[in-house]
Parts: sequence; C-alpha cells; structure tokens
Amino acid sequence: MPDAEPRPLPASWYEDPTSLLPPRELLDSLPTPLLAIHMGRVRANIARVLALTNGPERWRPHLKTTKTPEVWAELLAAGLRAFKCATVREAEVFCDLVEREGRDGIDLLLAHPLLGPGLGRLAALATRHPSVTISILVEDARAAATLPAPLTAFVDVDPGMHRTGLSPEHPAEILRVAEALGARLRGIHFYEGHLHDSDPDVRRAAVHAALDRLVELRDRFVASGLEIGELVTSGTPAFLSALSHRDLRGLDSTLHRVSPGTVVFHDVISEHENPELGLAPAALVLARVVSRPAPDRATLDTGTKSVSSDAGDPCCFVLGHEGFEPLHPSEEHLPLRVPPSSAPERGALLALVPRHVCPTVNLHDRALLVDGTQTRETSVAARGHGEKVPRSVLQVHRARR
Amino acid sequence: MPDAEPRPLPASWYEDPTSLLPPRELLDSLPTPLLAIHMGRVRANIARVLALTNGPERWRPHLKTTKTPEVWAELLAAGLRAFKCATVREAEVFCDLVEREGRDGIDLLLAHPLLGPGLGRLAALATRHPSVTISILVEDARAAATLPAPLTAFVDVDPGMHRTGLSPEHPAEILRVAEALGARLRGIHFYEGHLHDSDPDVRRAAVHAALDRLVELRDRFVASGLEIGELVTSGTPAFLSALSHRDLRGLDSTLHRVSPGTVVFHDVISEHENPELGLAPAALVLARVVSRPAPDRATLDTGTKSVSSDAGDPCCFVLGHEGFEPLHPSEEHLPLRVPPSSAPERGALLALVPRHVCPTVNLHDRALLVDGTQTRETSVAARGHGEKVPRSVLQVHRARR
Repeated sequence: MPDAEPRPLPASWYEDPTSLLPPRELLDSLPTPLLAIHMGRVRANIARVLALTNGPERWRPHLKTTKTPEVWAELLAAGLRAFKCATVREAEVFCDLVEREGRDGIDLLLAHPLLGPGLGRLAALATRHPSVTISILVEDARAAATLPAPLTAFVDVDPGMHRTGLSPEHPAEILRVAEALGARLRGIHFYEGHLHDSDPDVRRAAVHAALDRLVELRDRFVASGLEIGELVTSGTPAFLSALSHRDLRGLDSTLHRVSPGTVVFHDVISEHENPELGLAPAALVLARVVSRPAPDRATLDTGTKSVSSDAGDPCCFVLGHEGFEPLHPSEEHLPLRVPPSSAPERGALLALVPRHVCPTVNLHDRALLVDGTQTRETSVAARGHGEKVPRSVLQVHRARR
Repeated sequence: MPDAEPRPLPASWYEDPTSLLPPRELLDSLPTPLLAIHMGRVRANIARVLALTNGPERWRPHLKTTKTPEVWAELLAAGLRAFKCATVREAEVFCDLVEREGRDGIDLLLAHPLLGPGLGRLAALATRHPSVTISILVEDARAAATLPAPLTAFVDVDPGMHRTGLSPEHPAEILRVAEALGARLRGIHFYEGHLHDSDPDVRRAAVHAALDRLVELRDRFVASGLEIGELVTSGTPAFLSALSHRDLRGLDSTLHRVSPGTVVFHDVISEHENPELGLAPAALVLARVVSRPAPDRATLDTGTKSVSSDAGDPCCFVLGHEGFEPLHPSEEHLPLRVPPSSAPERGALLALVPRHVCPTVNLHDRALLVDGTQTRETSVAARGHGEKVPRSVLQVHRARR
C-alpha cells in the first residue's frame, strides 16, 4: 500500500517528456483527460521483467493492470503463455484475443474464489475456448466438488493478506480441498501481497519466511500423493524476493511462478517500492491546464474520475516538472502547486504518471497507443465489470409479478 | 470531504433491505458486483429536495452523480429545467435524452472552464440541440472573447475552493471577464464546496458569510449595468444553508439557484454531513460473499474498482447489517469484519451503500433499475470521458511522418 512520503524518483522522470508524447502536431487535437500508452516502453518493461525472471517460464503476468488487448498481445509476442486475471470480463476479452492471434497452449488463472453466475460464465468461456486452460481459486471443499467442467483450480492459501483463502495454520483443511479437486487440482495460489516493507532487506526476509511455509506445504502434499503442478505467488512488490528463494527453483514436478502485472505499465508506488526494477512509466494520463486560480496554482481537467486517488495524495507525478506538486484532486479537477516562474499557461498539456496505475487504467474507456511513428487509438476493452443481466431473467421476473 | 469517525446512521439503514432489492427469485441470477438503482427512492429523494427548495425553480441539479438517462428523466418529469454537469460526455448524453423526451426550454451548465477540443465538441452539441441553452464557466477575458457560438457563460468566481475561478478579492478582474462576455454573460458561478463543517451552525455561518460577498459582487455588477441573470452556488453539503440566506431570495432580475446532485442517490458522506435532509440511499452496490477466511471475516467480490475508495475507509455501509464492518478494500475484494454468530455464508448477496456515490456510479457500465414490480437494466451512459480521438487527426499524423 501507499507510502505518502516524498522520495526521489529517477532523473528521467524530471526530463522533458516530449519524446514520450504523441507528436506535437497532434497535441492540440487530443481530447483530455486521455490515457496514453507508450508501446515502446511497454516492450522495454516486458523485456526487463523477462530478464529478471530469466525467461518467460516463471512469470504469470497479471492482466488486471493493463486491460487492453494490444498490450496483452505484446506479452504473447514476448513468449508468455501463462496469465492471471481478476474478472470474468478480463478473461473474456483475453480469450477473444488468444483466438484472434491463433495461439495455443495458453493458461489463464482467474485469481478469485468465484461464486454465482460469474462461475457459469467462466465455465462457458472455457468450453468456447479449448485452447485456453482456465482455472480459478478454491478455498472450500464444496466449491471444489462442484467446480463446473471444464475449469481447473488452484487451492487458495492465504499467507497473511486476510482477504481470501485458507490459513497455512490448517494444512489438513487445505489438503481436504486439494483432494476434493482431484485431477482438476493445478497447484497452490499463495499471494503475499501484505508484504511490501519499504526496506528491501526486511521485505525479502519476510517474503522468504512466508515462502518457507509454502514449500513445507507443497512437500507435505506431494508426500501425500497429490500432484502440485504449480505454485503461484507474488505481485509487483515481492516478486524479486520470491525469485531469490532458493528452494522454489527447480522443484521436482512443481513449477513456481510469480505474477506481477503493474510492471508492464509501472507507476509511482512501484517506483517507490522497487526502484531496483529499472522500469519506466508506460501509461500516462494527458491532461490540460484549464485554470490559473493563483500565480502559484494551475488546475488540470483531471480528477479522481480519470486518475485514481485510491492510494492517497499525491495521486500522480507530473512528468518533466519536478516543481509541480499535485494537491488533493476532486472528481474532475486536479490543482497543482507550481513555481510562479515556470507556471504553465491555460491550455498547456501535461503528462501524468499515476500513483496507482491499475485503477487509473480501469477509469478509461479508450487509450491512445503511441508507438514509434504511429499513434493509434484503442478500447480499454476489459475495464469494469458490466456483465449484462440476462434478458431472460428479467423477463421471467416480469412474467411472475 | 470525508469524515472517518463512525457516526449513527438512520435506523432504516440497519433494517433488512429485502424491500429494496430485486425480487428474491432474481438474486441468484444477478452478476456481481452490480449497481442497483431503486427508482422509488430516486423519486422520493427528488420530491424531498423539491420540498426543501420550495419547487423546481431554485434547484439546478448536478448530473455528475447519477450519469444515467432514466434517472435524469425523473428530474425532467419532476419539473426541473436547469441542470449542471461536469463533462462533455454528460452533456451529450443529456442532450440526447432531452431530444428523445421532446423537452423544450432546457438549460445546461457545464461547470468547468473548458479548453481544448472539448470546447469545440460542446459548441457543436449546442448547435445540434437548439432546444438546450448550453453554457460553461469562464475565468479569463481571452476565453470570454473567443467563446464559440452558440455557447453562453457564467463567470467563475472562487469563494475559497482554490480549484478554478477568480478570487472575489479582485472584482475589477471579474468585471473585465463579465464585460468581455457581453450578451453571452448568464451570471456568476460561485461554488463554496470547501465549506462542509460537520457542525451545521458553523457551516451555515460560513456559507452565509461567503454568500454575503457574492451578493455584494452581484450588486456592484448590476450597478455597472451588467445583467446578472443567475447566481449558481452550493453542492449537497451547503445548499440548505444557501437557501436560508435572506438576500438571495427574490433578488430583482437575478435568480439564485443551488446545485446539489448527490441528493438524488444519497450516500454515507451526505448522511453524515446532512442527516436533516431526510434522504434515503437509492444507489446500492450488490456484492457476493466469495470467501470466509476466518470465523469473523467475510470477503466480498467488490473492491475499489466497483465501490470508490476515494473518500477513505470504510468505503461503504452494509445495508441491514449493523455489525458488519467494511475493512480496507483492494481492487476486487472487500473484507468485512463480521460477528461470528451472524456471519454470512459463501454466496450470500449483500447490498452496500457507497461512502461516496458519485465516483462509485462512474465505475459501472450498467445498472439494474429496481422499480416497483419491474426490474430493468440500463447503461450508465454518461460514465467516464472516453471521447474518441478523431480518426482524421490520427490519419493526418500518419501521413506526415
């Protein structure tokens, strides 16, 4: 979670962002606020993570950050075959992409103990897309026993996030769920998202201690005759620590994968938590100065409905402007404190790096893809939930009244 | 802004919400998270506000909260003719509704000092919809002089929000902008959103003091020969105080209007700030229990991507369950602390009242309209920004490279 203290950011964040923006002759024609994705940086970030994971095998990228088929296509092009997502909508948009791209052998984990109509929709999706193996999380034996075909599952074990999943304190219960899954057991999901101490050594020690428990659990289950094909751990804050855990490399018949997703776009929180990753912000929000209420104040046409404020203030960093301090946003306004000597004029276009990029992307229906000599536009097709309520359900209801 | 202290809520919030929910036989078929709008309560809230404003003349409802044509149609049906909105998308969706409903004499203020391509789009909208008078805010003389036909404008005066607008300390500058607008000057916009002290007496005194300045300003301009047709003030926290300002009633040739919008849906913040309004929550987020990680814990399939967390924790209130305490949400999960004795089962459907309903509605593409014997579904058509970048612009760019 956020850390509100100001901390140094890479020198490049303070440099003129012109090279990242759409070409100058386009700027005046761009509606704002507008999400702009720099595809060159997307590719560079993916390549950098693949260097850290030593190839695609150990990375199961989370798709919830990026939500955009063109960006997911870059992950496929880079050789990635196993993915994680958070919503049925993400799964549906992703499977459509896999089909369009003609990919085989794709593996998608919806990392949620899904219940209700969404589970049926996911099962129907898996039936329509036999080239994608789709699994979910399961934390109770009843859900395990009634898991709709053709879904597979990971047992959801909670290392301390206290959100979903079974406690490693109760291995017998975990074993019962795993056994109830039978041949549809894929492995263990173990998300240590609560471990993000700002001191990397403290964080690494905490992550290693948590993962020691996971290794014990895995060994115990393998000894019980269960096939644990995969251990899925770690988002962006912890994945480097997890990769350095000695016992998780080269386990017999079990593959360990980390699942960071924010790394593809990067953001202020991730830079603060993981400066050593060497990533660059690839998703910017373009905004205009609409007001100059005072010599040291400039207000942008961007607020909590276009740059998420879920992680606190400041909600973003103004690229190329060390001295511009974002103040508390309201829904459609972001006031900046600016040095009067370098205050931007009304109408000026600025590029913002979100503090938390995942919910920011989710606010945008469309995005500009800036890609070398091309500037395209696309739909952030997997944003939101927005499942239609089946019309038949509403009609049945009307008939009964 | 939010106040994190727990405070008593009306007894009805603790009662079984069954009467507000879609009928029981529908519940299992509903995808979650799902925005559900209770149309009976929408109508009752509108009627209640109209009783407080003594009829439709003094209320210019803000459309940014509700974003849904069916809800806006209720405002039109209740006799309201002047509206406020925040985005060009809201304006476009609203004008389409006005046309479908065949309404004349409608007045829409986009309360933003719009610049860039959005201004051209708004002007084009006004040309397409001559039955709607469309205005924006202006804070500088250059924008006033170049305001595209057929838009009109309100001078943006800032009583202390420090977001947009001119300070009342500089009446000469305000006068210059007003004069530059000439015949297109509609009046003064004066948004005192910074005044929301939790003590109603303190708040009323502060609002009255601010509005004294507005009355002085108006008198001065009228004395200068300017026509000040309307004074627009006050969102939900301050509008009752503004209505009780003696000098703003029955001004010669100037109409004072307040512009609350949250009142139509109501939320936890508004209830805390304005319990005397006597409103009831009309927009709920339906969520499912997907996990029971501990005897005193239940986790919902609802997080910051479906219930806004911009106003802090708790992000919502669980209707009908006094003892259920929402903890910090993540993007797709909301853990609740629950009494083990009354803990809900996996799969149970709960109804949440958002802490801040405006950005919550903005997260949803679709909504269920629960209306007496009918349950319909609709699109939250005005959510987001999502203006398409004109294809011609992108093509010109490609050609030039």
